[in-house]
Parts: sequence; structure tokens; C-alpha cells
Amino acid sequence: MKISASRIWSCVKEVREKSPVVHNITNYVVMNNSANALLSIGASPVMAHAEEEVEEMVNIAGALVINIGTLSPHWIRAMFRAAYQAKKMHIPIVLDPVGAGATAYRTGTARELLEEVTPAIIRGNASEIMAIMKEDAKTKGVDSTTSSHTAVDMAHQINKTYGSVVCVSGETDYIIDGNDITKVMNGHPMMTRVTGMGCIATALCGAFAAVNHTFAEAAAQAMAVMGIAGEIAAADAQGPGSLQVRFYDVLYRLSADDIHNYLNVDG
Amino acid sequence: MKISASRIWSCVKEVREKSPVVHNITNYVVMNNSANALLSIGASPVMAHAEEEVEEMVNIAGALVINIGTLSPHWIRAMFRAAYQAKKMHIPIVLDPVGAGATAYRTGTARELLEEVTPAIIRGNASEIMAIMKEDAKTKGVDSTTSSHTAVDMAHQINKTYGSVVCVSGETDYIIDGNDITKVMNGHPMMTRVTGMGCIATALCGAFAAVNHTFAEAAAQAMAVMGIAGEIAAADAQGPGSLQVRFYDVLYRLSADDIHNYLNVDG
Amino acid sequence: MKISASRIWSCVKEVREKSPVVHNITNYVVMNNSANALLSIGASPVMAHAEEEVEEMVNIAGALVINIGTLSPHWIRAMFRAAYQAKKMHIPIVLDPVGAGATAYRTGTARELLEEVTPAIIRGNASEIMAIMKEDAKTKGVDSTTSSHTAVDMAHQINKTYGSVVCVSGETDYIIDGNDITKVMNGHPMMTRVTGMGCIATALCGAFAAVNHTFAEAAAQAMAVMGIAGEIAAADAQGPGSLQVRFYDVLYRLSADDIHNYLNVDG
Repeated sequence: MKISASRIWSCVKEVREKSPVVHNITNYVVMNNSANALLSIGASPVMAHAEEEVEEMVNIAGALVINIGTLSPHWIRAMFRAAYQAKKMHIPIVLDPVGAGATAYRTGTARELLEEVTPAIIRGNASEIMAIMKEDAKTKGVDSTTSSHTAVDMAHQINKTYGSVVCVSGETDYIIDGNDITKVMNGHPMMTRVTGMGCIATALCGAFAAVNHTFAEAAAQAMAVMGIAGEIAAADAQGPGSLQVRFYDVLYRLSADDIHNYLNVDG
Repeated sequence: MKISASRIWSCVKEVREKSPVVHNITNYVVMNNSANALLSIGASPVMAHAEEEVEEMVNIAGALVINIGTLSPHWIRAMFRAAYQAKKMHIPIVLDPVGAGATAYRTGTARELLEEVTPAIIRGNASEIMAIMKEDAKTKGVDSTTSSHTAVDMAHQINKTYGSVVCVSGETDYIIDGNDITKVMNGHPMMTRVTGMGCIATALCGAFAAVNHTFAEAAAQAMAVMGIAGEIAAADAQGPGSLQVRFYDVLYRLSADDIHNYLNVDG
Repeated sequence: MKISASRIWSCVKEVREKSPVVHNITNYVVMNNSANALLSIGASPVMAHAEEEVEEMVNIAGALVINIGTLSPHWIRAMFRAAYQAKKMHIPIVLDPVGAGATAYRTGTARELLEEVTPAIIRGNASEIMAIMKEDAKTKGVDSTTSSHTAVDMAHQINKTYGSVVCVSGETDYIIDGNDITKVMNGHPMMTRVTGMGCIATALCGAFAAVNHTFAEAAAQAMAVMGIAGEIAAADAQGPGSLQVRFYDVLYRLSADDIHNYLNVDG
């Protein structure tokens, strides 16, 4: 896959011009962050989780983002209803299996979604991606990592079995699609000390999936934009508080030069 | 209606001195922002949505704010219970019909609340206000706009039918009450890139309704304070992240001079 | 009880090194803040509230934080399931009775939790602590205060009856355990204008309880770290918006010198 600064820039401009609606069924912790990140990059976030309205809401969306970070039974039912409708309407689904591996409830829900609705893109950390396929992969909470190497193997297996583009995020992000592996090396360690940065990355995958026909490209663009904005924001941040504030500012002001100067990819 | 800098300032001082309790039944995305904005201006926010306690909670409130941004059936039941109790106790109700027009569930809930509990103030963008009265007004998500002109006509109709003060917010905010139209031209375009700014405006309507007997005045004051704080905050903001942080700071420090220097109203 | 800057610093370092998982079942308003504060100090926050998974999740935690700020029946059931499991596994429970006294639902839930699961630490403001024991203690919303003097008496009574360490927070925080009273005088008045600061204090109690065998010490450390970070953050903050951002930065960068220079305790 080709990933170039100019192609990313062209898609950032497209997000800003078209302002695609991204329908999020996401966890309570990050709803506000996700909405703000999507607004900052130029998309139109919608949050709606009631069974009574998700099918109607997803119809006006350019992408559906499902994040299992704070589950409960009626949310799961809404996720499936929205996802079946999205599938029917050919609206790309992005899945974030937050905390898969930490509890059977999360692992089971993530697996069921994967099998039933075939997301266009799955984005998770190494332990979450491992957990989706392996019974014995256990995560320590929601932000730990296991060897990326094994997770990348698992990502290939998921991609082969279900066809979803798989993004294993970490210090290096791996975007897997068939024999294609794209590595995104952008980002900053301080980002792990801000809650919801992974969830924001998934939300951005939704925004880029809405303006791309190649989902691997959309995922790589989202991860690159995420990492670049994080790096620029972290450069003069005093800590995770100011990093987060600057991150939205940088997304909003992101320029062709920023992408050109910071992009660090391989693939 | 008279709206002057000195009258607004006198009400800001009253909010700070009396610190009225504003009971919010609002959406997950903006709960934190709404609470912070209310605390910054000097009010006492309370968030409570359980059917088991909303009636008791609203009894200690100076205003009840109902925001339908993330609905589900038990939240709707709680909204009605709180609203009936507020009506009985003559506590002003402020309604934010977030996303009315986007799904039948939202439109229906907003209309039913309007008919059943007669809010003191309704605040929405043009498409939301249109949707409450018109079957065929469709919104693109929660932040789009249609012609303010038509929405203002609709606002007059709502006001005539139900008696609620209607605030159509946008680049210019229109506050409609009988033959009275107040236009507030304060604000900054970057505010639309921060999630929940409309919801915060509604929450501020609650704070000002708690210290005013004229709800049109309360709505105009809230919109003016909102817009002035947004303008000052945007003046040296690098983007939506820093705008939001500065916005709370400005609300907290808002002075008579700020209001006098920035106020831009007609009516 | 001995509380020294060097002992606090040693526990801050332990939190950063061990990064204990703190399982939060907390209210919607402050989930994001609580997660960010825990990440900033170096802990690993987990948010999970489904009955289906709380028992499994709490098993991987070093502490369980239960905050009743936005209750509903299925959340209460999950709180009890998580708490019973935590008790069985000897995982310390920290209880924040947000708004106890404001409604019978909150007061009743807080009392039932206190009686059934014996928290290691309870942290609340004066009116909340009063409400847990006294029928006639009424709070004005969630952030008002009554006389700390009476609340401290009540705290002793709670401690004697149930064995829980009780922290009455306010301008001075009182940590009560048997005949031991520790007073923490750190903090800044502007902190009361940021939503969730009390809830963050409770979450930090969880982080310190996970690395301490003496819960009174954990509570005192958490309140001291909270107050010191708040003071440093407030020093050059323009208002509650920038205070909150700086607060996370300060927690992240907190040094032995900061603690040594600012610590203001008695006991």
C-alpha cells in the first residue's frame, strides 16, 4: 500500500470539506474526547446508543464506530442493530475491542461483533487483538501490551478469516490487510497517559473510512494523523493535561507541512 | 425586551451570590462540560437521572435542564417525572431538543416534552427548532443548520402554541417571546468545533432562569454571556482545545467591563 | 499516624512503578477526569459497570472505587457484586457517597454499601458524611458543606461502628481512624469550581490504597497529593479551566521537592 504525505493531506482536506457524519456507539469515558477529536479534524460526530434510534441514525452516517469500553446488555443490542443496518447500507464499521481479554464479557462481545458484522477496520492494542482470537491471551486492564510480534501474527489470522483490516496499535502501529503491512511510527509515549487516545484513534479511523474506499489506507491515515498530532502536541506539553488540549488544537490546524515534516511510516 | 450590559452583569452577580442549584438531566457527552460551565459562572450543578430520585432532587433546584442528546427509555421516564414535579413546584424547565429531526425517537420525545410540560425556555439550532413543529424538517446530525429565517417563523409558532420562550441559536441567536425578538450577535465560529457548546448554552439558560422572572430575559442573558465568553476565549486560542479551557476561565473571571465592551445585541 | 513528605514520595514512586489497576464504578460526569488523574499519577484505571463483568474485572484490580454520583438500579446491583467480590479477595474498597443527604436514594445506597461491604476508606464532604449517619442531615446538592466539627464527630462514629477509615474533605481534610486524626491543609479554593475534584480525590485514595497496608495512611497521602497538586496548579491558573489542565500536568510531574515544599499536615 502506498501511504504518502500528499495522499494523507488530500484526505484530511476531504474530511474538512465533506464533514462526514461519524456515528459513535462508544464508551462513557471517551465520548466527549471522541466528539472533540472528530470536530477538530473537521468531521461531524453523532453519539446515539438507543435501540429505538440507532438504525435511523446510522443511515445518515458515513461510518459507524463501535467501541466496547463500557458495555451493558442494552448497549450491546444497540451495537448489533446499528451494525446490521450499517452492513445493509454499505456503511463502513470500525470496531474498537477495548479491554477484550480482561473479561469474558468483553472478549465474547468483540468476537461476536467480528463474526456477525465483519468490521471494515478493527483497531486495538496488542493484547486486545490477541484476545479476539486466542482464549489464553489475557490483558491487564485496557492499556497493557503483549509482544506486538505475536499480535501481528494474530492480526493476519483475523484478516484472513474475516477480511477486516486490522490495526495493532502501540509504539509502532501495524496496519494489516492481506499481504500488506503498513507500519506507522508516529506518536509520543506521553499519549498513553491521556485516557481515550486509543478510542480517539478508532474514531479517526471512522472519519477517514468515510472518505476512502480502501480501508487499509483509511486506517493508516488515521493512525498517522493521530501520531503526528500527538507528537506535535507533546513537543511543548508540560504533561498529559496540556498534551490533550494541544492535541485538539493541532488536529484543527494540521497542515500539509506538518504531515510532510513528521510522517514516519514504512509500508 | 430590554437587554443591557448592566442588567446582565447584575444577574451574573446574582448567580455568583446565590449559586442556584441547576438540576441537569443531560446527555453523557456534555455532562462534564455542563457542570464545569455552571461551576465557572457560579451556579451549583446537580446531575441526577434515576427515576428513584429525580423528583426529590428537582425540589432543591432553581431550574431543571432537560437535554435529549443521548436518550434511552428509562432516561425519558425520568425526564418526565422530573419535569412534572418541576411544573408542580413552579421550577422553570429548560429544554434542549438535541438532534430533533435526526431520528423519530428524538423528534417524538422533544415534541412530547414540549406538549406535556411546557418548558419555560427551549434552546436549539435552526434544524432542531424546525423539527419540533414540522414533520419534514430533517437535520444532518446534531449540529447542522437550515435557514434561520424559517426557524424563526417556527419559533414564533411554538411560542404562540405553547407559551415557551424559544431560542434559535446560530451565528445570530434569536430569542422569541410574543412579539419580542432579541438578537444576540456574540460568539465565534470556532465554538462550533467544540462539542457541547450548545448544551452549555442551555445549561446557562437554566442558571439565569433561576435568578430571573422573565424567561426571555434569562435566555438572552445566557446567550450573551455564552457568546461573549466564547469571543474572549477564542481571541487568543490556538484551536478548539484551548478555546474550551479558556472559555471556563473567562466565565469564571467575567467582569462588568467584559460584558460592556463585547455585548452585541439588538432587541 | 506519621505522615511525612518522604513517605508520600515513596508511595508516589511505588504507584508509578507498579501502576496498580484501579477499578472504578463511578459516575458519568467524572469518569474521564478520574481516569486522567489516575493515569497522570501513574496508576492503571479501569472503568466497568456491567453486572456481567464486574466480578471478573475487580479480580485484576489493586483497589475498587465505588462512587454513587449518578445512580440507577443496575449500577447499584453492579456495585454490590463488585464489592462482595472485592471483599472476598481482600481488595480494598473506597466509597464516595456523592450527594448522600440530597435524596433518600443516595443516602440509602451509601448506607447499605457501608453496612454490607465495609469500605476500607470513605471519602466525602461534611454534609455527605453527616448524611450517612444522621437522618436529618440535608445537603444542598453535592458540593455544600455543613460544620466540619459535627461531621468529624460523625466520622468517628462511622469509624467506630464499621471500622472504615473516614475522610471528611473540605478546606481542611480530616482523616479519622480510631483515635488517630490527620489533618491535611493543602488545597486551593478554586478547586471547588472544577467538577469532580472530590471524585478524583477518591480515585487517588484507590491508587494509594493499592500500595499501602494502612488505609488511613493511603487516604492521607491521597488527600495531600491532591491538595498539593491543586495548589501548584492554581498558582498560575487563569480560572477553573486552566486549573484542571495544569492539575493533570502537575500530578504527572510531581516531585519529591514539590511534596517537601508544599506539604501542610497535622497529625
